[in-house]
Amino acid sequence: MAIGMASPLRGRLLVGQSGGPTVVINSSLVGIIHEALGYPEIEGIYGMRNGILGALHEDFLDLGRESPAVIEGLRYTPSAALGTSRHRLKPEEYERVLQVFRAHNIRFFCYIGGNDSMDTARRLEQLAKEAGYELRVMGVPKTVDNDLTHTDHCPGYGSAARFVALMMRDTGLDTIAGAFSTPVKIVEIMGRHAGWLTAAAALAKEGDEEAPPDLIYVPERPFSIARFLEDVREVCKERGRCVVALSEGVRDEQGNFVAALSTATDAFGHRQLGGASVYLSQLVNDELGLKSRFEKPDTIQRSMMICASPVDLNEAYMVGRMAVHHMMRGVSGKMVTLERAPGPAYYCTTGLVELEAVAEAERLLPPEYLDERGHPTKAFLDYALPLIGGHLPPYTHLKGYPVPRLLGG
Amino acid sequence: MAIGMASPLRGRLLVGQSGGPTVVINSSLVGIIHEALGYPEIEGIYGMRNGILGALHEDFLDLGRESPAVIEGLRYTPSAALGTSRHRLKPEEYERVLQVFRAHNIRFFCYIGGNDSMDTARRLEQLAKEAGYELRVMGVPKTVDNDLTHTDHCPGYGSAARFVALMMRDTGLDTIAGAFSTPVKIVEIMGRHAGWLTAAAALAKEGDEEAPPDLIYVPERPFSIARFLEDVREVCKERGRCVVALSEGVRDEQGNFVAALSTATDAFGHRQLGGASVYLSQLVNDELGLKSRFEKPDTIQRSMMICASPVDLNEAYMVGRMAVHHMMRGVSGKMVTLERAPGPAYYCTTGLVELEAVAEAERLLPPEYLDERGHPTKAFLDYALPLIGGHLPPYTHLKGYPVPRLLGG
Repeated sequence: MAIGMASPLRGRLLVGQSGGPTVVINSSLVGIIHEALGYPEIEGIYGMRNGILGALHEDFLDLGRESPAVIEGLRYTPSAALGTSRHRLKPEEYERVLQVFRAHNIRFFCYIGGNDSMDTARRLEQLAKEAGYELRVMGVPKTVDNDLTHTDHCPGYGSAARFVALMMRDTGLDTIAGAFSTPVKIVEIMGRHAGWLTAAAALAKEGDEEAPPDLIYVPERPFSIARFLEDVREVCKERGRCVVALSEGVRDEQGNFVAALSTATDAFGHRQLGGASVYLSQLVNDELGLKSRFEKPDTIQRSMMICASPVDLNEAYMVGRMAVHHMMRGVSGKMVTLERAPGPAYYCTTGLVELEAVAEAERLLPPEYLDERGHPTKAFLDYALPLIGGHLPPYTHLKGYPVPRLLGG
Repeated sequence: MAIGMASPLRGRLLVGQSGGPTVVINSSLVGIIHEALGYPEIEGIYGMRNGILGALHEDFLDLGRESPAVIEGLRYTPSAALGTSRHRLKPEEYERVLQVFRAHNIRFFCYIGGNDSMDTARRLEQLAKEAGYELRVMGVPKTVDNDLTHTDHCPGYGSAARFVALMMRDTGLDTIAGAFSTPVKIVEIMGRHAGWLTAAAALAKEGDEEAPPDLIYVPERPFSIARFLEDVREVCKERGRCVVALSEGVRDEQGNFVAALSTATDAFGHRQLGGASVYLSQLVNDELGLKSRFEKPDTIQRSMMICASPVDLNEAYMVGRMAVHHMMRGVSGKMVTLERAPGPAYYCTTGLVELEAVAEAERLLPPEYLDERGHPTKAFLDYALPLIGGHLPPYTHLKGYPVPRLLGG
């Protein structure tokens, strides 16, 4: 070997998807595959089935044998093509995974996921280093919760936020039209700890303070049932209806999840765990005497490809490509980040951050994104609007010229 | 007046929207307005606010004063621009409505709605006739439930069915990817008596018998909780996951709504009425020990413009136009229908049916659209596919080439 010219690391690349699927997590997978195809040192591209479980059980797919058309098509196919899991490796399982990596000569490992996954990736890299096994590890961010630190936003968020904005606007109009029959609607939105996705409901207002959603509750602020009921009553009095965007993760002043308060036992001894919206909707009916319905789109929020943000699709692909790009230049132990360029026009480039810095950390909505009521501020809307691909398709509304009444009574 | 040449009926046209909003009910409104603008006998176009309540309370909007751009834009704006209600006129209120009609010289009345609304329209026409007040009345069909008789299908259905098909396919893929964590998902679909919308979930399979949804329950068949649990257990055993499309209206052998079985009382004495999916999801957790989640998109199903079927948008507009077209040629007391042309290519023209024939009548899924399990047949899919605008956007799936295992254990 010539002095000063280390032979490049050669071996297989392994990629896995972890945690909740999104509309764009396959775009990141495709980005990784497309970039990997350009390097002769990568002697095979393997996909790990069901997240880290695939490594534990030696359950790999040979992605290099797939047709280019199938791979390209995955960019517009939601959910996680490799399957995911939420398994967290036990200490003894890390050893096993490294053994599997050695057996298959896995030298490049890309893990697409949230902060748990970044932690797993970090530990694997550490363990390999200790064992003297040369392994490069890169994290690729993904989460509709948008709660990873050190990145402007997370791939997956823009599309889920676009679903939430479109859905809230449309279901809000539905409530306005039918407010005579059912004035209250509570829409439960994903995000157990962070309110990023719930806050996206405010994009449905499109600058019209009077437009639905009328009330927004994020988990960053303590939730009071008494105040909630008062809020709903007041909005109904003023606007004749009340559309609520409610985080699934709202908690009372004591830190108890409101969803857990709905625990009840039916005649058969089964618990009723419908979630916060089911419970609060019933309370509105019973306590305020206002007819209320709830909507719980749950995983539909992170699934609907027709609502994908084009910005999100592109960025998810880009972070996948950049993970391999950096890895093939010797980088390891980092996660690719998205960095928003300054200035009024939206543009993102990528950066890198230590896995250690993002692992297990959680980014909640910062104070400047919430007003005194806990509603999203203009600063938040400016942040989020480009991520969903800009303004929603335009609607029109009747100006409404009343006809003078001719009869009494 | 010259003998044999009756002077044409002149006066104002009144239009109202009734029942649950849809994605295309405004298209019907626009069709009515656009057609009405072509007849000098129509001396004004009024919109009735909140369905028949607007007539009762003399609450009209002058639609003739709206800008053409606002009207055109309503074709792509979901929900009911005039507002709706579910109010049913009491006998004495019919008299009042007729009085209001007289005062405003309403001579043409178009009512967009379902079978209840057709009944209201029919009674009004009858009453006017008895009172010697010349009034032409036309019904324009609308319902996501698709349960009106004498028409091939109802405007509103195609778009809601397209939402259901898109949503089921995507949320089904989500479950497949995450089946290791949560293998069961129950999606509750609208339609209290008729299973047309729930059946549309089968369009998500796109001919793949193994694709989600794995189980479909329509209200046309009695529902057994014991058999349901058995079905879920079996599907999970075979496929490792079970995605269920469940009608909100499923009833047990005694005719009790399963949703009502979920009635329980919590510590505060409130009833829990989360619906059938909440209840059954909990049962799957508790009785089968399988982790289950539920999704209840509720009115989102009928609201999301981004999922609109182009066929549905066009047909809704067409039935609106045709209602006025026929009315101005002397027709009254009828509802416009959609008639599917025979042959393999999909094409619909309009027809007419007596309001009396559709009022209060309900069309359930016919036997040939359900197989012995109660799942939709190919005949149903052939019926429904053109209504959602044809095949869903294509997805790709990994062929999946397993890598041989190198290690034991």
